[in-house]
Amino acid sequence: MATTSVSELGRRAQRASRQLATASGAVKDTALRLAADLIEQHGADILAANQTDLASAAAEGATATELDRLRLTEARLRAMADGLRAVAGQPDPVGQVVEGYVRPNGLRVERVRVPLGVIGIIYENRPNVTSDAAGLCLKAGNVTMLRGSSSAIASNTAIVACLRQAAAKAGLPEDVVLLVEDTSREAAVAFMRLEGVIDCLIPRGGASLIATIRAEATVPCVIDGDGNCHVYVDAAADLDKAVAIVVNAKMQRPGVCNAAESLLVHAAVADAFLPRVARALDGVALVGDDRSRALVPGMGTADEADYATEFLDLKMAVAVVDDLDGAIDHITRFGSGHTEAIVTTDLAAAERFCSEVDAGAVVVNASTRFIDGAELGLGAEIGISTQKLHARGPMGVRELTCTKYVVRGDGQVRL
Amino acid sequence: MATTSVSELGRRAQRASRQLATASGAVKDTALRLAADLIEQHGADILAANQTDLASAAAEGATATELDRLRLTEARLRAMADGLRAVAGQPDPVGQVVEGYVRPNGLRVERVRVPLGVIGIIYENRPNVTSDAAGLCLKAGNVTMLRGSSSAIASNTAIVACLRQAAAKAGLPEDVVLLVEDTSREAAVAFMRLEGVIDCLIPRGGASLIATIRAEATVPCVIDGDGNCHVYVDAAADLDKAVAIVVNAKMQRPGVCNAAESLLVHAAVADAFLPRVARALDGVALVGDDRSRALVPGMGTADEADYATEFLDLKMAVAVVDDLDGAIDHITRFGSGHTEAIVTTDLAAAERFCSEVDAGAVVVNASTRFIDGAELGLGAEIGISTQKLHARGPMGVRELTCTKYVVRGDGQVRL
Repeated sequence: MATTSVSELGRRAQRASRQLATASGAVKDTALRLAADLIEQHGADILAANQTDLASAAAEGATATELDRLRLTEARLRAMADGLRAVAGQPDPVGQVVEGYVRPNGLRVERVRVPLGVIGIIYENRPNVTSDAAGLCLKAGNVTMLRGSSSAIASNTAIVACLRQAAAKAGLPEDVVLLVEDTSREAAVAFMRLEGVIDCLIPRGGASLIATIRAEATVPCVIDGDGNCHVYVDAAADLDKAVAIVVNAKMQRPGVCNAAESLLVHAAVADAFLPRVARALDGVALVGDDRSRALVPGMGTADEADYATEFLDLKMAVAVVDDLDGAIDHITRFGSGHTEAIVTTDLAAAERFCSEVDAGAVVVNASTRFIDGAELGLGAEIGISTQKLHARGPMGVRELTCTKYVVRGDGQVRL
Repeated sequence: MATTSVSELGRRAQRASRQLATASGAVKDTALRLAADLIEQHGADILAANQTDLASAAAEGATATELDRLRLTEARLRAMADGLRAVAGQPDPVGQVVEGYVRPNGLRVERVRVPLGVIGIIYENRPNVTSDAAGLCLKAGNVTMLRGSSSAIASNTAIVACLRQAAAKAGLPEDVVLLVEDTSREAAVAFMRLEGVIDCLIPRGGASLIATIRAEATVPCVIDGDGNCHVYVDAAADLDKAVAIVVNAKMQRPGVCNAAESLLVHAAVADAFLPRVARALDGVALVGDDRSRALVPGMGTADEADYATEFLDLKMAVAVVDDLDGAIDHITRFGSGHTEAIVTTDLAAAERFCSEVDAGAVVVNASTRFIDGAELGLGAEIGISTQKLHARGPMGVRELTCTKYVVRGDGQVRL
């Protein structure tokens, strides 16, 4: 079967977008629930398609991690279906009046939440992103154009078929979800340059994908970047809580972006705290500066690169700092603008940290692991933005919308 | 004097940004008022610098329009100073708690408005943009990196000197306002690629500048694009109001982006309305389709390009449409997503227009000319965004900020 060109898919996305933008919440939620049902009903077909992808990937020498990301299971399919149902249960952001007022000349002004239009998702491996992302976009009234990796093409095709069929059964255009079947680099670049079609491009992937987006994309993007998150243990920290928070932030799920990668300790409590936390971080490879290493026998040496790295693993870089300023300077230099935490009982230190640390989220006396959409009560998230424009921090359905001014008058003209 | 490299300016911008981000509203407002005073006190120097720019531009063959945009006068200087004072009088957006709530686990979550950080402005000719843009950015706690055109370099340098001196007198770093003195294309491209430095790039200029930004910029941008605005006169329009609105939208100030460029008329009222409005649009060159031309003797022929053009002049494209759907289709095809207006007494038509027309602003029974920051009550504006990401429609100080999650706990860890 010949693949459809990216530009033709773009035209179809725009047509579908016009119809979807004014669809009722009830219709969109029906489509989401039908999609969940279809994914469960066609589970065997999806898993068979996934087996094809896995076999090809294994033959091409994919790593165990890559294969794990690519793999679907009964449990993962159920999680995808449940995710779609959960999104259906969330409030519809579209139509919300964000503000409204009357001007002195009688013009009634409202700012109303509306869909962005067409959202492009470019992602690697994980086929569950296909339904997670498309579900959130649909909820917010957006057409989704998906460009997954060639490694997952059979899985993605099978999942997209369910989503499209569900849309049609709910009375929406099938084209509210579109898959770019051409997985060449040329098609990816054409996709990133669909100016006037893609209103927002969201990459989900590693550093090389982000670099390609920055170099090639001409459409507006929201970058879901690295999380090089720090925990700073202040002179006035409750050290019991500090141990629990550091252990949780590093070890509860090391492979995710809101896990902590670096530990900063105030010099005044380094003696008391570092040996204790090192014991508690059992199984974590610690690397540190000279002052840290003097307190923890066997700790490796940290170089600049360690402080700048998102390990996503049971590894942590440690530094002793002279004071709060030292901690803020270190974070300013090495942080990625994702999540930064302080443990302290000192009000002034907490306030200065919150005010002066420039990140999507600052956390006082709690684990960095709370900075995701579900934990913050946003519902499902499409990513965590480390840029400042449009969305910052966890992005839920609200971040997949924009606003429109609606101005009503009675013949007013400007003097 | 050797010019400072763009990358060195970037480093200075980041240092200044850290200090400015936590400056009080009182200090920022003092800086803005001092800047206004200094611009007035150094008016003669600024005008002399402007004369240098004007002489060079004239020698290089600048058009009358270009020279007018470049020219400063006593009145324009006063408007710049008054603009800075007006911005000082607006509320400070920084620190506003956008939302706040407590999670079931006791975590207290706030979303707080904070500065974007460093804003890049790239613009052509008009030296008044220098103080207008830098003033708004400063109010919102942002460092401004300005890259004006070579034609205005002497004027811009003189104005920036006042802004920097005012900042220093108010106790802020001088570097809260920085001018890229190297006006080469290479420096402009380096400026657009200051990744990790410029948090938001706002171009103010014509189509070729926007095209360069799309092709070359790697930093996040907000595009202030064209305004190809329509007025649609519905079958149920009050024709007296329709005439007044069309005349105002087209003629009150034709050279601005919220002026109307096209007129769409429902076939049922074309006979009654078009000859009347054509007489009222005295001095406007009308071009139209066959049905329009049959009703207005002497009307020129409109081609596709006319319907797609932002004339910014006393010219208007006219089309007769069969119904509301025809009007919405036409706007969907040719509109630029800026401002679209309907004149009608029919509630259903008004509601469908507001819902189905995809633009930054939709207007019922009023002139398109109301869609700017001051008229909508936002205060001064830095531009009107025709993209959907981050900001849509008129952008005031609020749109020069982002939000940060501040999460306070008492030792919570994730289970």
